[in-house]
Amino acid sequence: MSRYAIYVVSDSTGETAWRTTGSALLQFPDQRWNVRRFADVRDRKTLEGILDLIAADGATALVVYTFADTRLREYMAARLTEQGIRGIDLIGPVIEQLRDAAGRKPAGVTGAQYRQDAQYGTRMRAIEYAVKHDDGAGLATIGQADVILIGPSRTGKTPLSMLLANHGYRVANLPFIPGQPLIEMLDGADDALVVGLMIDADELVRYREERIRSGKGVPGASRYAEPAVVAEELAQARAFFVERGWLVVDVSGRAIEEIAIEIIGHLDPESTHVGGL
Amino acid sequence: MSRYAIYVVSDSTGETAWRTTGSALLQFPDQRWNVRRFADVRDRKTLEGILDLIAADGATALVVYTFADTRLREYMAARLTEQGIRGIDLIGPVIEQLRDAAGRKPAGVTGAQYRQDAQYGTRMRAIEYAVKHDDGAGLATIGQADVILIGPSRTGKTPLSMLLANHGYRVANLPFIPGQPLIEMLDGADDALVVGLMIDADELVRYREERIRSGKGVPGASRYAEPAVVAEELAQARAFFVERGWLVVDVSGRAIEEIAIEIIGHLDPESTHVGGL
Repeated sequence: MSRYAIYVVSDSTGETAWRTTGSALLQFPDQRWNVRRFADVRDRKTLEGILDLIAADGATALVVYTFADTRLREYMAARLTEQGIRGIDLIGPVIEQLRDAAGRKPAGVTGAQYRQDAQYGTRMRAIEYAVKHDDGAGLATIGQADVILIGPSRTGKTPLSMLLANHGYRVANLPFIPGQPLIEMLDGADDALVVGLMIDADELVRYREERIRSGKGVPGASRYAEPAVVAEELAQARAFFVERGWLVVDVSGRAIEEIAIEIIGHLDPESTHVGGL
Repeated sequence: MSRYAIYVVSDSTGETAWRTTGSALLQFPDQRWNVRRFADVRDRKTLEGILDLIAADGATALVVYTFADTRLREYMAARLTEQGIRGIDLIGPVIEQLRDAAGRKPAGVTGAQYRQDAQYGTRMRAIEYAVKHDDGAGLATIGQADVILIGPSRTGKTPLSMLLANHGYRVANLPFIPGQPLIEMLDGADDALVVGLMIDADELVRYREERIRSGKGVPGASRYAEPAVVAEELAQARAFFVERGWLVVDVSGRAIEEIAIEIIGHLDPESTHVGGL
């Protein structure tokens, strides 16, 4: 099967174009693509070098680009047209529409140049916080959490914590362990949104069996993945969450990004929070 | 100052549109925007409800949307035109160009539906691995790492580890502590790319002073942020990294995404790896 060449080019990190391209590629699961990313392209000379590479692929190449610098963006568009190469200016149309809406000039600085901004620091600190408060660790400072996730083993607490932290929220996660009340641990965390994670019993059994097969060890006993034990544990967890009036979020069969959005919706219903670059 | 309404609408998580919009908004640092995200919009009825909300903002609204479903995408475009509302179809043009390049029909499934794919599992496991191998923890299983980051305190090892993990790489990070050789810890990690993190001394002094002010405690001594001590520590770190032939990456004044790309470039020079949705 032929492989088509896709070039992601940016004067910043190219993360936005990379992700958008990734989403579009998901629509073609049976096709292989060669995706190459060029970040920090900030002058015409560098850009010309990349255009030479692209020209070698010619008509089979697709270029997806984001330039904060208007002149570089226009130069790229002109050169691609000249050479008859498919190109998509991903961020230009959005910036232009925003300019028209607000009647303001865009700053023309790249995302990377915003490194020192407040949002950047918030995100870095939130990630550090989430790592230090994984799986019941760091209880002494749980009072600083924006979100506390509680759920049985293998409900995906850790990845969900990191994803929420990447959005700037301080997240702690705790295991739900049957018969071991957790409520004492939550003293002083009154300001946090506490979320109880629930999951379909069959799905949880599968994840736990996978965990056992991985040979990495499991919490507690030999009955960790037994359907009857899992069902009973889930029933206890749900009753525990409901009794305390906590938000219950079902993670069954859902993408982690979807779950994160549901939780962010509760934290920040009129969300003006804008994610990373 | 007026706030302009921006609607991000998707039949999947909307993460791609959210991030792209965020990047574009960075070009207007002095303007406030109301950004609202609607995820999982999969039928016309739900879409019409959102269009009613948008219509109330009228000409000041901007709608950025991504639909894997072609019919929903075309319906959205038609309705926005009809109502005279600014709209940007972010992913449609990319999908169409890919279709033309490959001569294949897009699958029309949303990103969320790919949850169970291999890449998803890889990413989840990588995040769990990185959390368990933060700051010198989990040395017994460091042999499974794809990347080992080593750097002095406050060079940003933890957030960088999580970002690389989100791309599916297993990352461990270890502190560089002067006078305490780390090389023994790295036995059995011969397959990993070892990266020594370096930073400008003045920048590191600032980060350490900030850490001291935060009152969270610092490793070691009272001289943690003293310029002469910091400069000496950095000199020792560089010598240590160079002596072992490790890749040295300078993080000074750079966005974390940029640093991650540099490291991914070494892991996977002809990168066909496509990030999360």
